Amino acid sequence: MHLHDRFAEFLSASEIIEATPALLNDQRRRFVSSPDIVLQPNSIESVQKIMRFCFENRIRVTPQGGNTGLCGATVTTEGVLLNLSKFNRIRDINLADNSMTVEAGVILQNAQKAAAEAGRLFPLSLASEGSCQIGGNIACNAGGLNVLRYGTMRDLVIGLEIVLPNGELISHLHPLHKNTTGYDLRHLFIGSEGTLGIITAATLKLFANPLDKATAWVGIPDIESAVRLLTETQAHFAERLCSFELISRFAAELSSEFSNLPLPTHSEWHILLELTDSLPNDSLNGQLAEFLYEKGFTDSVLAQSKQERIHMWALRENISASQRKLGTSIKHDIAIPIGCVADFVRRCAKDLEQNFKGIQIVCFGHLGDGSLHYNTFLPDILSNEAYRYEDDINGTVYRNILACNGTVAAEHGIGIIKKQWLDKVRTPAEIALMKSIKQHLDPYNIMNPGKLLP
Amino acid sequence: MHLHDRFAEFLSASEIIEATPALLNDQRRRFVSSPDIVLQPNSIESVQKIMRFCFENRIRVTPQGGNTGLCGATVTTEGVLLNLSKFNRIRDINLADNSMTVEAGVILQNAQKAAAEAGRLFPLSLASEGSCQIGGNIACNAGGLNVLRYGTMRDLVIGLEIVLPNGELISHLHPLHKNTTGYDLRHLFIGSEGTLGIITAATLKLFANPLDKATAWVGIPDIESAVRLLTETQAHFAERLCSFELISRFAAELSSEFSNLPLPTHSEWHILLELTDSLPNDSLNGQLAEFLYEKGFTDSVLAQSKQERIHMWALRENISASQRKLGTSIKHDIAIPIGCVADFVRRCAKDLEQNFKGIQIVCFGHLGDGSLHYNTFLPDILSNEAYRYEDDINGTVYRNILACNGTVAAEHGIGIIKKQWLDKVRTPAEIALMKSIKQHLDPYNIMNPGKLLP
Ligand SMILES: Cc1cc2nc3c(=O)[nH]c(=O)nc-3n(C[C@H](O)[C@H](O)[C@H](O)COP(=O)(O)OP(=O)(O)OC[C@H]3O[C@@H](n4cnc5c(N)ncnc54)[C@H](O)[C@@H]3O)c2cc1C
Ligand SMILES: Cc1cc2nc3c(=O)[nH]c(=O)nc-3n(C[C@H](O)[C@H](O)[C@H](O)COP(=O)(O)OP(=O)(O)OC[C@H]3O[C@@H](n4cnc5c(N)ncnc54)[C@H](O)[C@@H]3O)c2cc1C
Repeated sequence: MHLHDRFAEFLSASEIIEATPALLNDQRRRFVSSPDIVLQPNSIESVQKIMRFCFENRIRVTPQGGNTGLCGATVTTEGVLLNLSKFNRIRDINLADNSMTVEAGVILQNAQKAAAEAGRLFPLSLASEGSCQIGGNIACNAGGLNVLRYGTMRDLVIGLEIVLPNGELISHLHPLHKNTTGYDLRHLFIGSEGTLGIITAATLKLFANPLDKATAWVGIPDIESAVRLLTETQAHFAERLCSFELISRFAAELSSEFSNLPLPTHSEWHILLELTDSLPNDSLNGQLAEFLYEKGFTDSVLAQSKQERIHMWALRENISASQRKLGTSIKHDIAIPIGCVADFVRRCAKDLEQNFKGIQIVCFGHLGDGSLHYNTFLPDILSNEAYRYEDDINGTVYRNILACNGTVAAEHGIGIIKKQWLDKVRTPAEIALMKSIKQHLDPYNIMNPGKLLP
Repeated sequence: MHLHDRFAEFLSASEIIEATPALLNDQRRRFVSSPDIVLQPNSIESVQKIMRFCFENRIRVTPQGGNTGLCGATVTTEGVLLNLSKFNRIRDINLADNSMTVEAGVILQNAQKAAAEAGRLFPLSLASEGSCQIGGNIACNAGGLNVLRYGTMRDLVIGLEIVLPNGELISHLHPLHKNTTGYDLRHLFIGSEGTLGIITAATLKLFANPLDKATAWVGIPDIESAVRLLTETQAHFAERLCSFELISRFAAELSSEFSNLPLPTHSEWHILLELTDSLPNDSLNGQLAEFLYEKGFTDSVLAQSKQERIHMWALRENISASQRKLGTSIKHDIAIPIGCVADFVRRCAKDLEQNFKGIQIVCFGHLGDGSLHYNTFLPDILSNEAYRYEDDINGTVYRNILACNGTVAAEHGIGIIKKQWLDKVRTPAEIALMKSIKQHLDPYNIMNPGKLLP
């Protein structure tokens, strides 16, 4: 019997869907999937039935959320592509516990909106928030713009509902802020990139709304100055510091041209920083201006209106789009101890320029938490041909990263494109433990096989 | 050859120590250990050698920090009692990354002091902070007074250094705030109660110092009012709310008598709440007074001096000591969704009074994060004889806890005294996964055997 007919025996017609390019092409148009079937279940029971069937019949299952991942982790050439988009209900908002229970297929922006309507903040924020899903955010441990203050997705998840590879349901959706009953398994699933089970729902933390905001664009001569600004801002404003973004001159100029917006300052490096406060005091702007002046950061512009704030953020957010004109990039999603960023940036640029004449580097990122986007463009290389140089460029970048105790995957995950680097950042004992956990939960290796683990 | 001589072959004389009552008696004087030998290694190499030797010879190892745990998790009747007290160095304080690397045997209070000397806050705070150790805090995922704002120990650990049961070292002490490279193993060790390996050091998060503080004692008629106060305070003051402690009339009166301090209010229930801010604005007290008045919480006293603040906190902290005159208690360290606390407290008291005539209940705790200390005293029962009724009393309390989706272990762990309750809060699939992880890392079951897992 054909696979379609087997699934039709226990799924409704609307749960078996057509494969569209949006589901099959990966975000960067580098890989194309060719699953045997695409399923979009609309109930936990259906997910359980699918998993039980696939477990018994050793059929591979690749979970998919908004398909915005950047590591090829939803790419598959066989079995079931299991899209979670129909799991799109906000189940519950609980103000006493400051929590919200949402299904895995809820689009991040809709989760933010639901929190806002209840007078609260759900702080995860990424440029892809209009299409990525809560389940994907959890499976990748997404980061983004507010990590400095609120942490990554890992820090925002209180409880999970999961269907295991064999179809069993594990459900812990009660808002218990303290619970120490044996090994913490929740954190195994967070960041597991769909290799251990299907996340169907989660209970998330909510926060008070920010009612006072101050946004500044600061020009600085070097990264050392940026680190000094960060350290002093954190010592003074503490948790009020919400974002602290570093932007190189090249990245800023690209974005300025693309956005048709002038740069607030003209310097070698730029910082876009934002303070927020939940009390409506309307005093942060003044305090920040005074602070920057006192600390000697005089090449600064404070956003004096909502419009000016939007302009500053547009300059930051358009960097990705503006660099496309340089061709296909080899991207790096790295993190290093903050004290080492300056050294890394200098050394790595030197090494790259030596090895790849004319290479262009677009460097920007969340300096506040030590993570950087580090995109490299080879001159005169057309589109995906650039990937031929990927191993070489990675070799240079990651050698420098490892030399300063950094990581090759800060917030995008491992997927298929970084598997061969895993053993550079984790010991054999750790990888063996990961494999043992995988083997226990997924003995037939049906859950997103070939991703994350070497 | 005698065990002592075998260890003397590779350890220095000072690493093999006398067994003292302080090391052998558990905190509550309920259990007494009788290990074959007590070791106090002073280097990672020694810990590795000990573990390798014990692994090869199938000798049991029980790690011990400050021995303040409340679940009998350091009790042993054979093998090695491995005390970490000599691992007492602050290795590094890093202001750019807001982090601190300390060894496992550093006493919590000393870690707090080191942070303070560097102009930062390490926020974990427990009544036992003068003797418990960072390693023990991590192994138990300790909670305490500041969880509402800063989380439990789990939320404060960036990196760990661990010696595995077979003697292998895993070291991740670099301050990477973002790192998503495979399954998160750090969180497996946090809260594992010494059953997966020896924690030798950790990199911890630091925060800005609180420079403005407001402390209030609020009298309220019922727990519903407390929950309303909590929800409104959080919506308004957000992260400034640092502690929110609930105290029953009985607990407050016991402590008042014991402490020889008057109670600020006379009501059925009391809330001790504290706001802190890192900016030295000196405005929180006024804002809190106004807020309480506006929201109708008029039976409130604000601490107007440091002395008054200390009095309020003494009333809270002396509850444990003041209840000793009631005899040996059956204690419960529980957490429930905050919206269910009122219902739980009413129902459980009714059930207990019905089943155990004359039972006295001392109920207080960290309502802000849903966790409660719930101590019960049977009349006319002398000292440890009370434990004969433990199963019965637990049966009543935990039935009520489970009925409102709570947990039997909020912040003290499972140890030996709650093992039989684990399968009431975790599914068979979860316990099987825990056992599989344990089996992989510790195939001969030498690490703190008999604890945590059934
Ligand atoms: C323009 C742009 C900007 C971005 N900015 C950021 C950023 O700032 N920070 C950041 O961290 N990321 C960023 N990303 C990457 C991406 O958006 C995130 O990784 C996001 O969390 C992926 O969510 P998704 O729903 O699209 O997941 P998908 O791409 O569909 O899937 C990603 C992985 O999660 C698994 N998965 C998805 N749903 C489930 C589920 N329900 N159960 C189990 N496994 C599941 C998949 O199998 C796959 O392994 C950006 C991407 C783009 C395109
Ligand atoms: C008066 C009092 C008040 C308390 N208040 C609180 C409170 O508010 N909140 C709270 O959470 N707890 C509280 N506790 C409980 C206790 O203090 C905590 O659990 C503390 O974290 C235990 O630390 P320790 O160093 O004493 O650990 P120990 O008691 O020595 O050990 C506890 C467990 O950790 C393991 N362990 C210890 N060190 C290591 C290591 N280096 N590597 C691996 N495993 C290790 C042990 O094997 C054991 O399983 C209180 C205790 C007392 C006596």
